[in-house]
Amino acid sequence: MQNFSYFNPTRIVFGKGSISHLFKLVPVNQKILMTYGGGSIFKNGVYDQVKQALAGRELYEFGGIEANPTYETLMKAVTLVKQEGIQFLLAVGGGSVLDGTKFVAAAALYEGEDPWDIPSHRGKIGKVLPVASVMTLPATGSEMNGNAVISRKSTQEKLGFGDVRLNPVFSILDPETTFSLPVNQLRNGIVDAFVHVMEQYLTYPVNTPLQDRQAEAVLLTLIEEADAILSDPPQYDARANFMWCATQALNGLLSRGTVGDWATHPIGHELTAFYGMAHGETLAVVYPSMMRFKKDAKKVKMLQYAERVFGLRGLPEEEMLQQAADQTEAFFRRIGIGTRLKEYNVNAAEAAEKISARFAERGWKLGEHEDIDAEAVRQILLNAA
Amino acid sequence: MQNFSYFNPTRIVFGKGSISHLFKLVPVNQKILMTYGGGSIFKNGVYDQVKQALAGRELYEFGGIEANPTYETLMKAVTLVKQEGIQFLLAVGGGSVLDGTKFVAAAALYEGEDPWDIPSHRGKIGKVLPVASVMTLPATGSEMNGNAVISRKSTQEKLGFGDVRLNPVFSILDPETTFSLPVNQLRNGIVDAFVHVMEQYLTYPVNTPLQDRQAEAVLLTLIEEADAILSDPPQYDARANFMWCATQALNGLLSRGTVGDWATHPIGHELTAFYGMAHGETLAVVYPSMMRFKKDAKKVKMLQYAERVFGLRGLPEEEMLQQAADQTEAFFRRIGIGTRLKEYNVNAAEAAEKISARFAERGWKLGEHEDIDAEAVRQILLNAA
Repeated sequence: MQNFSYFNPTRIVFGKGSISHLFKLVPVNQKILMTYGGGSIFKNGVYDQVKQALAGRELYEFGGIEANPTYETLMKAVTLVKQEGIQFLLAVGGGSVLDGTKFVAAAALYEGEDPWDIPSHRGKIGKVLPVASVMTLPATGSEMNGNAVISRKSTQEKLGFGDVRLNPVFSILDPETTFSLPVNQLRNGIVDAFVHVMEQYLTYPVNTPLQDRQAEAVLLTLIEEADAILSDPPQYDARANFMWCATQALNGLLSRGTVGDWATHPIGHELTAFYGMAHGETLAVVYPSMMRFKKDAKKVKMLQYAERVFGLRGLPEEEMLQQAADQTEAFFRRIGIGTRLKEYNVNAAEAAEKISARFAERGWKLGEHEDIDAEAVRQILLNAA
Repeated sequence: MQNFSYFNPTRIVFGKGSISHLFKLVPVNQKILMTYGGGSIFKNGVYDQVKQALAGRELYEFGGIEANPTYETLMKAVTLVKQEGIQFLLAVGGGSVLDGTKFVAAAALYEGEDPWDIPSHRGKIGKVLPVASVMTLPATGSEMNGNAVISRKSTQEKLGFGDVRLNPVFSILDPETTFSLPVNQLRNGIVDAFVHVMEQYLTYPVNTPLQDRQAEAVLLTLIEEADAILSDPPQYDARANFMWCATQALNGLLSRGTVGDWATHPIGHELTAFYGMAHGETLAVVYPSMMRFKKDAKKVKMLQYAERVFGLRGLPEEEMLQQAADQTEAFFRRIGIGTRLKEYNVNAAEAAEKISARFAERGWKLGEHEDIDAEAVRQILLNAA
């Protein structure tokens, strides 16, 4: 096991009816900005619940944060925050709203010239405004970590950044808020949570048996609960289990003392930036191809995964590795997500060119062996045609 | 799943050499009291490492905190804290030192007459001094929770209390500090961590598949790593895995949204209070007997445990339940812990009388069905003769 530190000061308030707790969680006598997305919170009653819990507070609003929140939109929120002297940010929605709000929290107090420095890692995060969330979409894990990913339209970029000071002060997770989610968002969320775990788990062994089993716990639960999560009418417990899986998948615990991969996410981000594919869709396409491409380097963990997650035993090694990737892809397909670029009308050859050029330009060599470079990306995308 | 909240602000710094981080973790310009136990930290070099990291700080010392720390001893530390105006408590040692120090943290600022009110739940914890730890013995999980158990010699009592404000500000876990531990402390630690998980896991199902698997992750790791943990010379990774298992076993995650048992610990505390048995020994004796006594009420989870933790399949239900208890007891025996009262020269009939009388006197009805009362305790202890 490698040395590590762990500090996660986010308070989680979980369960039906928990939005009412905002009343005591949000600081009094402060100017609060409630941020949200395209307006689904008006339809599912979440907006009303928040307003009711915060009746009498000095509450400002900023709506219209997109899926894959853009720098362009978020800078308008930054202006509002500065103008009104906002002191506390409350993101109400999914991971995109929360990620965007984390950017606002850092950008509003950024001392450099252009806050885009933060996602592009040209400038350091200084002071930040406190952020909290009412999380309505289980997927990103943003509700219990300090990470965020935002996009910039003008340059077709999508980049991530993180800081423990951007951990939400609290996150409220009420599984009932997921009841009105469209099925494609649930599917994408399942894939997102699943691949978050894989990025931390499927590398090479450094003797972390507990973290391995904690990772497998999330994977097995997502697989076993998938049908119930997607069922209509919605089942409370299945949604609750999904929500908690998504949070546990990326609150930092699974990666303690291990080596991380995290090559699939940046490739996926480029697919979103260039082609507008949903985040979960990009992962469903890239990850099985990544597994096949790296099956030798990932062999030990991949055999363990095949056995413990899919119950495979006694097959020849090569067959086990093949099956590990095939069954992962089959799981994504089973829940209704396309796993090939053509299903999204993306030309694989073109995507391979464009995205490997980006990797070359930035000099990126990612993955646990730092060998996912431009050429590797080309192969992985061509194989995902 | 039941509603829950989770807030665990303890910063963990884990790995070899991590004691040197004290330099930046301990607040400057404060009066610090370093607390410790019987002096093992002088032999294993931990004392010197702490002193070196905190050179130049205003550092006071209070040693001699016992295994099963006593009110009598701890009140001397409270006097010292008040006399010197101590502002920060640093516990260096195992769970007993840290538990005792948590008591000091709450007792020093207690506004009632007698701080024994806190463990006996006659008074409320008010303000507390900040506590941190260098944890040298994987077992209690106290390094990442706000709980503590202390004893009172004069009344032969051993009682627990807890408050999130008593969570350590930080805990340093260096697996190398365990290298000099006597084997019996390692054995007791394994049993303690194992039974902590069981108290949260083996109750009745409320649809928490992730938490179940997270619990099984700790159990399986402890079983698989046990021989390596106990090996001489010590193996770094095994000790690291053990240390992290013990922390994860009781940092609150496993019990989120579930129902808890926690009947075995109070019975064990009485065995310690009356007979001086080590905490781990009491659990090894009581828990298998508890499993047999409650096999019908715990049936669903016990069958799951038999299958997932011991790999049992296809046996008749009654045989599976029997085996679940037998194999648990066999695991404790395999690592060298006696599981019967007579092995500790404790007369079961006498213990059953004394301890069931205590339960009767306090009106305790414990366990997930609140049915572990005086009569149940009598049976459980007689069956553990």
